[in-house]
Amino acid sequence: MKDEIILLAHGAGGRKSAVLIHELFCRHFDNPALNAMGDSALLSDGMRRLAFTTDSFVVDPLFFPGGNIGKLAVCGTVNDLAAVGARPVALSASFILEEGLPVEVLERVVVSMREAAREVSIPVVAGDTKVVPRGSADQMFITTSGIGLVPESLAAPAPDRAAPGDAVLISGTIGDHGMAVMTCRERIRFSSEIQSDCCPLHDLAAVILDAGPNTHCMRDPTRGGLAAVLNEIAAQSGVCIEIEEAAVPINEDVRVACELLGIDPLHVANEGKLVVIVPPEEADAVLGAMGSHPKGEGAAKIGMVQPEPVGRVHLRTGLGACRILDMPSGDLLPRIC
Amino acid sequence: MKDEIILLAHGAGGRKSAVLIHELFCRHFDNPALNAMGDSALLSDGMRRLAFTTDSFVVDPLFFPGGNIGKLAVCGTVNDLAAVGARPVALSASFILEEGLPVEVLERVVVSMREAAREVSIPVVAGDTKVVPRGSADQMFITTSGIGLVPESLAAPAPDRAAPGDAVLISGTIGDHGMAVMTCRERIRFSSEIQSDCCPLHDLAAVILDAGPNTHCMRDPTRGGLAAVLNEIAAQSGVCIEIEEAAVPINEDVRVACELLGIDPLHVANEGKLVVIVPPEEADAVLGAMGSHPKGEGAAKIGMVQPEPVGRVHLRTGLGACRILDMPSGDLLPRIC
Repeated sequence: MKDEIILLAHGAGGRKSAVLIHELFCRHFDNPALNAMGDSALLSDGMRRLAFTTDSFVVDPLFFPGGNIGKLAVCGTVNDLAAVGARPVALSASFILEEGLPVEVLERVVVSMREAAREVSIPVVAGDTKVVPRGSADQMFITTSGIGLVPESLAAPAPDRAAPGDAVLISGTIGDHGMAVMTCRERIRFSSEIQSDCCPLHDLAAVILDAGPNTHCMRDPTRGGLAAVLNEIAAQSGVCIEIEEAAVPINEDVRVACELLGIDPLHVANEGKLVVIVPPEEADAVLGAMGSHPKGEGAAKIGMVQPEPVGRVHLRTGLGACRILDMPSGDLLPRIC
Repeated sequence: MKDEIILLAHGAGGRKSAVLIHELFCRHFDNPALNAMGDSALLSDGMRRLAFTTDSFVVDPLFFPGGNIGKLAVCGTVNDLAAVGARPVALSASFILEEGLPVEVLERVVVSMREAAREVSIPVVAGDTKVVPRGSADQMFITTSGIGLVPESLAAPAPDRAAPGDAVLISGTIGDHGMAVMTCRERIRFSSEIQSDCCPLHDLAAVILDAGPNTHCMRDPTRGGLAAVLNEIAAQSGVCIEIEEAAVPINEDVRVACELLGIDPLHVANEGKLVVIVPPEEADAVLGAMGSHPKGEGAAKIGMVQPEPVGRVHLRTGLGACRILDMPSGDLLPRIC
């Protein structure tokens, strides 16, 4: 990578992101908690484990149907904690502001953060603010970090635990967040506005782990969408994941918007969904528990884990054909979160 | 503040920063850990306390004499942990990159982060990378967050614990970091380059707390410099802090550079110094311990805490006169850290 320059694709959650993370960050920072590549890092800590995660948010525009950068920053970090089975304990929030930003805009964002944090009962205990001259940043970037606690008794879900025979579940429709931001940014109008699914998933995750204490994997399919997360799990677990295309729930407006823009909805970011991989004997219980939670209404079983070919994701189409579902490459959707 | 816009001064660590933090962030996020306004938040956690802190780094230029944005990002967060008496446990690092940044530049920064983290034996366990289009950010911003542990037996130093009669100590010369960045950015040349003091202070902090287990306050005087930190302590502790101007150690080059640029060195950022406020009976022990540590070589007693006037910082000049040392106002030094 030495002679390369950073491209938008390096931040898109697909193939180039994975190369940058492995070749640069994991190579230099090399440690077991980082290398596990979960949504949160896990630190052992006596009777329980500390979960720790961070994300920067650069979404454009700042406000979109169903949310804004502040709500997204809180939910994104809470969901990274929830995905490893952690109870969220505290958040930090660091702001990089462009000189000239109206204080009123900042306050609307902060109020949304407060409301989202209240829903989770998580305090924002630490923060920082930097201001850069006009033109050195675009309005506002927010970085949130979160701490959570995982009981030592829980075999925390991890991306390397998927096993042949496991069921693959999704908690609802995919692509809503990415398409809400894209159609808002590009001013594409439909009969009704596409709404982001941005919401905190701590409660849904708790319900899932209650019903399926042996849940093998739980992931938050943000940048790179369902395709990126399934490819990561297939590679880290050394399995093949087979998905039935027709079983993947997609809102009609999202499907149309994706067709119009030439984007595969399986590559589009979600901010309020969980992918869950469970042993077959717990699949029905988990699916039922998800379906009876308001944030898991559209839950569906979308596929199964197969022993091989290792590291592959297969998509079975309605006609019985099978295609390889790859990591997204290139950057279809810059500044989506 | 409703009709205001964000100015550079809102990020400068002085009066406007304080207003923004109190009126906006503390008002909305309101909770005891945040409101304590220490360098790190403290969460009670059974047998000990968890320290949690975050900072964004936007320094310009990325590389300066004595450090770069990566070293600064690790040291800044480690020092915020050290200042509350915490043993650093884990770091996260989140990058916002401008499209077009050479990967080679990013790698040099990451290598510096690795080296600084190694010196502290702290792993970087979590991270994120976002890339924004050319012109939407200036090269690279880094946000680090840190977790540390404070033993419950330690009465953690806090900015509201200064008491009349306490001695005010500084671990060495002030203004080096800010003037290193400024003179580098403005291409002002002296006989020798001014070097940033950027370094991790976990070891110095441990030595201080060993020698002075009743240390009342320990702060890392970054943005806003010594003046901002002393004013914050005076306000939060409800005391007056009296400083002897002649006792404050300043390197000759830094003094000249400040005069040239019309900047008060007491307002200039440090990244490798600690301000320590200790009961008089522990002052000599702490000063001795600092002085015998390589990172506290220039340690000095610079003043005393007085009962009043409450919330004020007084500076006694060589001629016996006394002036009020105020919070910095305006933004003298944008993007200094």
